[in-house]
Amino acid sequence: MTAPSKPRRLTPKGQATRNRIVDAATALIARQGVAGTSIEDVRAEAGVSGSQLYHYFESKQELIRAVITRHADPTLDSTRPRIEALDSFDALRAWADAAIEQQLANDCRGYCNLGTLAGELGVSDEESRTDIADGFLRWKDLILNGLKAMRDRGELRADADLDELSYALLTGLQGGVLLTQIMRDVRPLEAVLNSALAYIHSFATAA
Amino acid sequence: MTAPSKPRRLTPKGQATRNRIVDAATALIARQGVAGTSIEDVRAEAGVSGSQLYHYFESKQELIRAVITRHADPTLDSTRPRIEALDSFDALRAWADAAIEQQLANDCRGYCNLGTLAGELGVSDEESRTDIADGFLRWKDLILNGLKAMRDRGELRADADLDELSYALLTGLQGGVLLTQIMRDVRPLEAVLNSALAYIHSFATAA
Repeated sequence: MTAPSKPRRLTPKGQATRNRIVDAATALIARQGVAGTSIEDVRAEAGVSGSQLYHYFESKQELIRAVITRHADPTLDSTRPRIEALDSFDALRAWADAAIEQQLANDCRGYCNLGTLAGELGVSDEESRTDIADGFLRWKDLILNGLKAMRDRGELRADADLDELSYALLTGLQGGVLLTQIMRDVRPLEAVLNSALAYIHSFATAA
Repeated sequence: MTAPSKPRRLTPKGQATRNRIVDAATALIARQGVAGTSIEDVRAEAGVSGSQLYHYFESKQELIRAVITRHADPTLDSTRPRIEALDSFDALRAWADAAIEQQLANDCRGYCNLGTLAGELGVSDEESRTDIADGFLRWKDLILNGLKAMRDRGELRADADLDELSYALLTGLQGGVLLTQIMRDVRPLEAVLNSALAYIHSFATAA
């Protein structure tokens, strides 16, 4: 285990360079996996020098943590459907549809998320595991906050287990992306999202 | 890509030795991941000589294929709850409960299935990807056959999309095991299985 990287104060230009490196690493890992992506690949894709790259990231492990952090933070992640608030049945359905569209647009390949990173890194690397687990919790809480707003407005029953509903949707999305990537078929993702949304809907007060 | 291994005719003793090697590899990969498991680890765990191991498996890749094949075949897999037939609501619930129990018994760690293998291997390795995809299809068909029997007995509605229901349950199980391993918390698995079973149940004729 290495210590978490110290936060550094970066100039706007430095921040832009750092972002470009993380963008490149994120794209390459999506296409080639973590094991298939070298520091040199990232350097070339980002169009930076080796000394620039090592100025921001001292090791491949540190760079991977930045990619995990990006996927873990719903507000940072630009590759996913943007989420404003998942606080209505329509918003939940639109979010699910956007995730399905994203798979179709990529031919069910080369799209990486926390779930695929979890599979590649998390089982054997304790540091990555805890980083990814933190990311799952953040996503779960984002869903949970939307469901709480729905319950507070009287759209979901007071006795609904909102933690369970949030986990069902998050787990369905992550597992669905994984199976869809492996099977090159969007049906696993569609099916599990339909299932999770139907489960949430079964706790609607109007139902 | 290497050619699939030629089927060999093994003596009962040879088959037992081969099984012991695959058992050892399966157990080690569950604990340490594929990348963290060496041929030498497997040799030592199985208690065989190097020449014995190489007699049955010419490379690590060939050994990994045997582990994938074991996880892919519902009738070969001894680490999962044994499945006779998933052809009633009670049988489906019992299967889900057994998967949850298995996670709890292992403290939500060190249990590997096709989904975790898929995450580690499938995104970047085409040969493993197709092997794992075949395995997912076999499991999907096993669930599908049970649901068809339920429909034929009139327990599920004739208009139920049984392919979708099968994918929802399979994807939930795989994603649920992955998140449960990463988060060291059984709730993602419980939630997504409850969700998938409720979805199937919503197509019950009696409902």
